[in-house]
Amino acid sequence: MPHINFNNDFPGIRSAMAYSPETAAPMGVLAEILLRSTEGLQPAERELIGMYVSYLNDCFYCHHSHGEIACIYLGGDRALVEQVRKDYTQAPISEKLKSLLGIAAKVQQGGKFVTAEDVSNAKANGADDKDIHDTVLIAAAFCMFNRYVDGLATTTPTDMSSYPLRAQQIVDNGYGSHVYSAKQPV
Amino acid sequence: MPHINFNNDFPGIRSAMAYSPETAAPMGVLAEILLRSTEGLQPAERELIGMYVSYLNDCFYCHHSHGEIACIYLGGDRALVEQVRKDYTQAPISEKLKSLLGIAAKVQQGGKFVTAEDVSNAKANGADDKDIHDTVLIAAAFCMFNRYVDGLATTTPTDMSSYPLRAQQIVDNGYGSHVYSAKQPV
Repeated sequence: MPHINFNNDFPGIRSAMAYSPETAAPMGVLAEILLRSTEGLQPAERELIGMYVSYLNDCFYCHHSHGEIACIYLGGDRALVEQVRKDYTQAPISEKLKSLLGIAAKVQQGGKFVTAEDVSNAKANGADDKDIHDTVLIAAAFCMFNRYVDGLATTTPTDMSSYPLRAQQIVDNGYGSHVYSAKQPV
Repeated sequence: MPHINFNNDFPGIRSAMAYSPETAAPMGVLAEILLRSTEGLQPAERELIGMYVSYLNDCFYCHHSHGEIACIYLGGDRALVEQVRKDYTQAPISEKLKSLLGIAAKVQQGGKFVTAEDVSNAKANGADDKDIHDTVLIAAAFCMFNRYVDGLATTTPTDMSSYPLRAQQIVDNGYGSHVYSAKQPV
């Protein structure tokens, strides 16, 4: 049961965002820029980073939601998403993305865990300053989103067939806060 | 030395925000709402929560910056800020704020650490749903801000006399992203 009365039946972060639309608006804008930009890292890569940090934070709602969104961007390759979740070092992804996932995992522990060696390794694998900036901020932002979802004990849907439906909404419409004011919870 | 070239000499989060103004804008809006709202929790209380989470995250720049902002709102009572940092349970603050600082400390560890008992305790001490919502989101947001600051190894000013100057800027002008585009770093 949620820790507070959200006055709505939305699942996960949607319930908290519908409860507090004034904070949902900038959070939606931030997610839109960080996860859907095609400048540098592509949306599939951005979603994989967010999914992986959510997995490390043990946020069931978030890692399944963003895993499904990544899956759509990857043409339905759910096995790849699952491999990144379980052990990204063995996944068929670029060495650059592996380096960035390593940095994201450090950020999940705490900012100071990221070392100059982690960064130089990512640069050797082709990451530029903006890739590193975006990776650190995506990972940091999911440390916020995950805590918002679980710190208020929002409702986690157990019907796994609902995750692809919500994921498709995000792929189609983006992270604008209007998503969270839809009358019918999905 | 910062992990990436920010192309500016600003300290702390200001360097990252000046580097990436498109993400700085929604982050500034979020900080403005969460830390300067006078609806429910007051700005001094909001800043103390942010300062305390930053202290727990060992983010020197953030806990000193927000400690100084709290200090201004508290009429210069730096001893109170220091007592909250060291052991808030012994500080001359309301039982309600003590309960909320306890919830914030749980959020710092991870969202799932917050228990129904923590929440009912805060409610017994006078906190309402919005106070709990805001506390969880302030704590979660600082888990993002702190990781952004330290994950990119932004510059931490060692001249402690500069912290009150920047704090006064925030108190006077707010968290709008225009602050970060000032030509002269402070």
